[in-house]
Amino acid sequence: MTREYQVISTDDHIIEPPGLFDGRLPKEFADRTPKLVETEESAAWHIPGVDKPIEMSGLGTAAGQKEEEFSPKSKTFGAMRAGCYDPRERLKDMDIDGVDVQVTFPTLPGLAGLTFIEIEDKAYALALIRAYNDWLVEEWSAADPERLLGAAILPLWDPQEAATELRRVVGKGIKVTTLPSAPQTIPGVKPYPNESWEPIWDALEETGVPAEIHIVSGKNDLSALGAMGGGAEIFVCMAPSSNMATVATLLFSGILRKHPKLKFISAESGIGWVPYFIERADYTHRKHQFWTGTKIDVTPSDLFRQSIFVNFISDRAGVELRHHMLDNIMLGTDYPHTDSSWPNTQLVIKEQMGDIEDEERAKICWKNAVRVFNLNGS
Amino acid sequence: MTREYQVISTDDHIIEPPGLFDGRLPKEFADRTPKLVETEESAAWHIPGVDKPIEMSGLGTAAGQKEEEFSPKSKTFGAMRAGCYDPRERLKDMDIDGVDVQVTFPTLPGLAGLTFIEIEDKAYALALIRAYNDWLVEEWSAADPERLLGAAILPLWDPQEAATELRRVVGKGIKVTTLPSAPQTIPGVKPYPNESWEPIWDALEETGVPAEIHIVSGKNDLSALGAMGGGAEIFVCMAPSSNMATVATLLFSGILRKHPKLKFISAESGIGWVPYFIERADYTHRKHQFWTGTKIDVTPSDLFRQSIFVNFISDRAGVELRHHMLDNIMLGTDYPHTDSSWPNTQLVIKEQMGDIEDEERAKICWKNAVRVFNLNGS
Repeated sequence: MTREYQVISTDDHIIEPPGLFDGRLPKEFADRTPKLVETEESAAWHIPGVDKPIEMSGLGTAAGQKEEEFSPKSKTFGAMRAGCYDPRERLKDMDIDGVDVQVTFPTLPGLAGLTFIEIEDKAYALALIRAYNDWLVEEWSAADPERLLGAAILPLWDPQEAATELRRVVGKGIKVTTLPSAPQTIPGVKPYPNESWEPIWDALEETGVPAEIHIVSGKNDLSALGAMGGGAEIFVCMAPSSNMATVATLLFSGILRKHPKLKFISAESGIGWVPYFIERADYTHRKHQFWTGTKIDVTPSDLFRQSIFVNFISDRAGVELRHHMLDNIMLGTDYPHTDSSWPNTQLVIKEQMGDIEDEERAKICWKNAVRVFNLNGS
Repeated sequence: MTREYQVISTDDHIIEPPGLFDGRLPKEFADRTPKLVETEESAAWHIPGVDKPIEMSGLGTAAGQKEEEFSPKSKTFGAMRAGCYDPRERLKDMDIDGVDVQVTFPTLPGLAGLTFIEIEDKAYALALIRAYNDWLVEEWSAADPERLLGAAILPLWDPQEAATELRRVVGKGIKVTTLPSAPQTIPGVKPYPNESWEPIWDALEETGVPAEIHIVSGKNDLSALGAMGGGAEIFVCMAPSSNMATVATLLFSGILRKHPKLKFISAESGIGWVPYFIERADYTHRKHQFWTGTKIDVTPSDLFRQSIFVNFISDRAGVELRHHMLDNIMLGTDYPHTDSSWPNTQLVIKEQMGDIEDEERAKICWKNAVRVFNLNGS
């Protein structure tokens, strides 16, 4: 049986519910089970080994709020829309939005698991990551495994262990993993071009699982922007395209030449800059390959089309330029964040893609995702 | 008399010739006159108060070389094409290229004068800046003041002094100044949104002179890229669009609302990312203006169209999207750098703009520049 799709969103977020870790840690770590502590006004996770409680930002739990109500201030679970944390309520909100599938990123561990990865006691950190991935399969995605594709997190400080964990969770039904936008900013983790990543590249190729690299999922990705003195709007404006540096690193590193089956999704990065960027990458390679001692013997744009996928919420310029990248672009609804198109995703699709050919719209809205995520769809 | 133009390039570079400062410094600094020292293989400026000799990179003196010959290694003046440093030879090279005008950036002092700005003895630093600007008018642009528009440098550590110097050199015929891409990285200089810049904004509005902000003209603009582990190609690929952060800062700072006559040119940044970027800026402002406490009450894209101009060497994606920004884009030939279109600028224009309307091509190739640089042209 193949499923019929209309919209597959490849960028959304889980707000992890209280009790997630209860009973999921091995005996020796049971007394270090992370706990959610709620006051009348806010909610924060307390994790032994993590310096500060982790508050859920109001900007990350904004589903159902008007722009005028957005605030970074933490809120209680009672003040959130239940779709934030309850997978069955999430499915209802997806129905309201006309969205068949969401790929959901973690929030409490960070978009790529950095909060756990940085814990000093690595045995405990690994237990947390395994427990999180187990919960993702057994509780979150279990509400409808075809519609909620939870993105796994990996113990990146130990690439062999990360490869083992990837294979383990793929065996349990996981269809996608997260990777960070700036691995080199994480203590104990090397930049993507470093050969230490080989076991992870091998495991990704073997399993056929795509890796989603969400914007600003490294540590201090955009720290330089603060110094420019312009405030939060500049950060919000610049955050999506900050993934350009990550994509450039992958293109020029040689990884995609050595591992042609790798599939990376640049999540929430927008798409309108892509034609400029791959043209610039080719110009760079053509003009500078001799003195730079390039690691690639094909054009960067060919490697992009082979291995890089990019998603967007709202991007008219990108839709206008879709013919440059029609097999490499996807939608994301960014539920329940402030930039989300929910509950107006159908309207956004109509406004931005109402006048394009059905086959083109189908590729962007679901067909490319079916192929990249190995879904059973038509 | 108005002049007829075909091509105005708004991004090129001077390689400063030996003897530039000879006899140009006040008596008290005469014994600290910077000197060019040549060996058989290289050339470097020695400036008292600057730690290391400043070599002229081979990548900045590549005019006439093939891609296979590009090298960062310094070379002697004898090994360079004379158009690098001799204004009369430059004019001949412009004729070969079918280019009427070049806006030329400094090299020895850095693209925005940072080498001089960072000298501790500020009286000496100011003397160097004045001497440089005097040479620019009296020797460089003097070869043909209508065709060689030398870009001034300013003593940015003292905004009042910078405003005075701007008025002084405009009185001598200067038509454009440089400003850095990341002022906050320069010791003693504040970020653009800081009110200390007001005297400079006032002087720019009063004189009507545009400020060109060249990519990577701040200090350590792209230092984070090194850590990504991918080498020089990533830097070259990412350098143009790194000016996005500077443009975002200007748009959201409120400066362009308070000083609507300011004109900034984002130099060598390419243009293909602009439609994506101004759409993203508007989306950011519409969705986030309430919690961020925005400083602007109009859309960022309106401020962009009012005050920001962007130039490119080769950018098909940008030309395809020209209708989004037809009054705000210009050409640059980047002579004598590695990315330059010289001596094939006519071919590049034909390949990229051969099939667009004459009036559109005229705006991009020269009409916008006539307006922004207050030239006398038709």
